Amino acid sequence: MEERKISSAVIKRLPRYMRFLSDLKLEGVEHISSADLSRRMKVTASQIRQDLNHFGGFGQQGYGYNVSYLLAEISRILGLDSPHDMVVIGCGNLGRALAGYTRFETRGLFIRAMFDIAPPVDHVRDIPVFPMRELEGYLRTHACDIAILTIPKEAAHDTAHRLYACGIRAFLNFAHLDLALPDDAFVENVHLSDSLMQLTYRLKESGSTASGNGSGDSRGN
Amino acid sequence: MEERKISSAVIKRLPRYMRFLSDLKLEGVEHISSADLSRRMKVTASQIRQDLNHFGGFGQQGYGYNVSYLLAEISRILGLDSPHDMVVIGCGNLGRALAGYTRFETRGLFIRAMFDIAPPVDHVRDIPVFPMRELEGYLRTHACDIAILTIPKEAAHDTAHRLYACGIRAFLNFAHLDLALPDDAFVENVHLSDSLMQLTYRLKESGSTASGNGSGDSRGN
Repeated sequence: MEERKISSAVIKRLPRYMRFLSDLKLEGVEHISSADLSRRMKVTASQIRQDLNHFGGFGQQGYGYNVSYLLAEISRILGLDSPHDMVVIGCGNLGRALAGYTRFETRGLFIRAMFDIAPPVDHVRDIPVFPMRELEGYLRTHACDIAILTIPKEAAHDTAHRLYACGIRAFLNFAHLDLALPDDAFVENVHLSDSLMQLTYRLKESGSTASGNGSGDSRGN
Repeated sequence: MEERKISSAVIKRLPRYMRFLSDLKLEGVEHISSADLSRRMKVTASQIRQDLNHFGGFGQQGYGYNVSYLLAEISRILGLDSPHDMVVIGCGNLGRALAGYTRFETRGLFIRAMFDIAPPVDHVRDIPVFPMRELEGYLRTHACDIAILTIPKEAAHDTAHRLYACGIRAFLNFAHLDLALPDDAFVENVHLSDSLMQLTYRLKESGSTASGNGSGDSRGN
């Protein structure tokens, strides 16, 4: 299998290819050239060819890429060819927002249950909400492989370890800390204030903050 | 100014330094060596020295880094030495979750107002929620520099352009599309399904999906 050699930079770009290819499929487009895809995605055609050649180079001279085939291949590489069951820990506004996203399900990613120290509701859509003390019992009878943590920083470490002990190895973490878990656990962090700081940096560099009126003044520097 | 030369990779790492340094400051630690910071952050000491040397190398032989000074410097570089006013577009669960985060405010990032086509509530905490038709009027009298978009894909493009026309140049985008905005606009995307796909990829690679029972079976491959 060639797949082992795909760099993590390429893997990070694959979901974006999926998004564009899914839209193309919805529009009824069956084939697309790297040049056309390049225009849509605002990525160079050579980058696209390089990325997609990593897993077989299915571009055909004169036809371009077969959209459905490429989508299926990328799905398979990303492990989306079989469904994944997920639990959400925390039933606050963020947890409920996630439970409301039906888009995950179109990719075979299903939120099966939510847990909260004090469940504010019984269900979100058709997803049951259980008290935290039932976590281990639930996971013994319902194999899940991804946990989404929407709980405060203070509770995140212990909760992640309980989930790990139940066999969960993949974590989408919104808590504002780095989870220290054994090496066979995978963590994707969503640190929103980090993203905001990238924006404040770029506003500052460009001199276009509202308070600075774009004058590039150097107050405080 | 040396700052212009800092690579975006280093800038992306700075919020994490801030988080660890803030915790150290709370613990009353005044100085820290690159070796100690390395152990805490699980980054090599040489990486830390390299990163922090980019903006002046304030590490003193025998004393290590001055925590408060370093925090202030990183804050300044990230544009956090003056406050930023933000608006949230969309008052669903996600918008409300964001409006509830008081942590942003400790960094000088203030959500001043929320907008929704049909405001479900008047306020979230002390943050007013206005109908979308009042967006332009509000921004004329309240200079804001960051917009957080928690609205469906279909509405995101038009809304982003309305915000741009009002002078907003920085966008934190949760909508599942790439915003096409002029080059002087900065966009940070939070695409949660992309993050989930990084996890499904790694589960597949390691053979540890719940359905696969860690047996590394090759069904469907």
